[in-house]
Amino acid sequence: ISNLDLEIGALDKGGFEHFMLKEIYEQPLTLEETFRGRLRNDHSEIVLGGLLDVFPKLEQAGRIIIIGCGTSWHAALIGEYLIEEYAQTPVEVEYASEFRYRNPVIGEKDVVILISQSGETADTLAALRLAKEKGATVLGICNVAGSSLARETDAGVYTHAGVEVGVASTKAFTAQVAVLTMIALQLAKRKETIDAETYRMLVKELSETPAKGRLILESNKKIAAIAEKYKEAVNALYLGRGYLFPVALEGALKLKEISYVHAEGYAAGEMKHGPIALIDDNLPVIVVAPQDAYYEKVVSNIQEVKARKGNVIAVVTEGDTGLHEMVNDVIEIPRSHLAVAPLLAVIPLQLLAYHIAVLKGCDVDRPRNLAKSVTVE
Amino acid sequence: ISNLDLEIGALDKGGFEHFMLKEIYEQPLTLEETFRGRLRNDHSEIVLGGLLDVFPKLEQAGRIIIIGCGTSWHAALIGEYLIEEYAQTPVEVEYASEFRYRNPVIGEKDVVILISQSGETADTLAALRLAKEKGATVLGICNVAGSSLARETDAGVYTHAGVEVGVASTKAFTAQVAVLTMIALQLAKRKETIDAETYRMLVKELSETPAKGRLILESNKKIAAIAEKYKEAVNALYLGRGYLFPVALEGALKLKEISYVHAEGYAAGEMKHGPIALIDDNLPVIVVAPQDAYYEKVVSNIQEVKARKGNVIAVVTEGDTGLHEMVNDVIEIPRSHLAVAPLLAVIPLQLLAYHIAVLKGCDVDRPRNLAKSVTVE
Repeated sequence: ISNLDLEIGALDKGGFEHFMLKEIYEQPLTLEETFRGRLRNDHSEIVLGGLLDVFPKLEQAGRIIIIGCGTSWHAALIGEYLIEEYAQTPVEVEYASEFRYRNPVIGEKDVVILISQSGETADTLAALRLAKEKGATVLGICNVAGSSLARETDAGVYTHAGVEVGVASTKAFTAQVAVLTMIALQLAKRKETIDAETYRMLVKELSETPAKGRLILESNKKIAAIAEKYKEAVNALYLGRGYLFPVALEGALKLKEISYVHAEGYAAGEMKHGPIALIDDNLPVIVVAPQDAYYEKVVSNIQEVKARKGNVIAVVTEGDTGLHEMVNDVIEIPRSHLAVAPLLAVIPLQLLAYHIAVLKGCDVDRPRNLAKSVTVE
Repeated sequence: ISNLDLEIGALDKGGFEHFMLKEIYEQPLTLEETFRGRLRNDHSEIVLGGLLDVFPKLEQAGRIIIIGCGTSWHAALIGEYLIEEYAQTPVEVEYASEFRYRNPVIGEKDVVILISQSGETADTLAALRLAKEKGATVLGICNVAGSSLARETDAGVYTHAGVEVGVASTKAFTAQVAVLTMIALQLAKRKETIDAETYRMLVKELSETPAKGRLILESNKKIAAIAEKYKEAVNALYLGRGYLFPVALEGALKLKEISYVHAEGYAAGEMKHGPIALIDDNLPVIVVAPQDAYYEKVVSNIQEVKARKGNVIAVVTEGDTGLHEMVNDVIEIPRSHLAVAPLLAVIPLQLLAYHIAVLKGCDVDRPRNLAKSVTVE
């Protein structure tokens, strides 16, 4: 492990009050960096140089296992949905800390993808070594060049998110999701489980996410005003379906990490099986509800929350005025294909968590009890 | 759907104050009912008559997918760990509400197991129909004979838990886990992935769980006294590893459902990746920490919580005095093999949730906003 001996104070916040806010704002740029040289301009191809030699293994994989901790585990869940949907390869997602202590079923035909921003997360490295021992092909997705994860995997893809200082990961998450989306689409293309038109359309959608991300950042002041309304909340619920279920988990984790509000994410369809009992007029419920295949179902979830006097903050597709009257607060995001929506929908949730934490007087960049990378077990 | 037109008041609480408490106490008996005729007295065999014709399919399955909602989903997670450990078949667990709305990778070699107490959970039935459409073998685990789940699956196993009235499921959960454990062990025997000695030892362990469950129920008064100390808590964290990670999730769900305390379960190894930020001297942390393969790791988690002034209630193996000084409150459970520990460790968590809810004046058998079985989508 190389220690850079960086003092937080010595790094430039670029005019932002906190590193976290700076890093949230950097996401359109870091997405561009992560796509650079990988997405062809005519949307005809995704080139992932680091995986060229191992793509045949990925194509033949009976199963892909994606492993991470915390935020990386949320990115892994999105990867699972994308790879199963488009490449039709069964995917299993595991917590590194669980995987390493059991006797997981892994064979030589399996491919294990490990995700860690720092590339030094202790449990993730232990999982990597276990998977290697069992003969699996091991791939890494990490942000730090030359990290243990990068050195010990058979191949991998770097997220080019740049140094992330804020303990609560933001731009590293979106870069991880961007990489997983590229892997899913390219694998689908090679396996011929996606038609040429859909592939090109989705590559184009991916290439448009940086610009759409910039539009979302323009809502920052509006989101700060919403945060002001909910800054006294001590609990919060985050709901989403499909690709946006892990985004709900990630939004809840951000708030939990930096504001110490007990926020919990749920698959919206699970609400009726327990968490709905929590809902009263004190509980803010953040619903990720863009217009997509699950839209009607999510609207029905919102109605259930409102019927129990819950306060709903909805992340909706721009122009979806139908929801405005139903909910307490609305944050609009540009229309996009569902497959790339996680890259956009997470941004307002990061900003909401940030502003609530600042209003609560929390040390956003160095939240209590947490380390930037968990290098102990 | 046959409506029995039962009035809650018309059923017999058998001297207990609430159906939920009655049903918690019935668990040793319902475990015996679920094992009756299935566990041979000499521990040489598990007979699951309903699965005899489909065991070859299970043996050849490339993958087993277990689907449920809420408490059944927690049982499914335990099933995953058991089947992967002993039968070495890859298992994927899915929320019914998520599975049914995506394009899941399922083939004719896959076996899908659906779990629902009522056998009428709408999302689970929809998932069942989707899995059938895709050509998978579909098996059911349910408690209500003649339910839609029982009728529409290819085969299955009934949990003989009897009528469950309390909205928060207790005895149906332990019966589901008992059935999954029997399936895992019998599949392992048929696949020859377990040696004869281990198999016999685990069948014996299973057969001993009713008696051990009765011993745990003797701690009821002690658990009520612990509940008294934490009745004002508005949040709680539940931690466990391995087989006991889903038990932590289930313990948290019980508290959430009936007392409206925002309780959340976590794999203990994930604590450092976010939830540790929540810990202060107001937050009770319930740690499921029997002496097992993960014991040292869980003790280290407890130390981290204590270092941050958290209050720890630990579920420990009887006689494990080492932990007594470290934590605030201790609940002992009899020593057992880890593979059957979920059937025991969940009981004190059910009792803790029950007593906290009663002390808070909540309507334990009919918690707000919740239905016994969710027959709408």
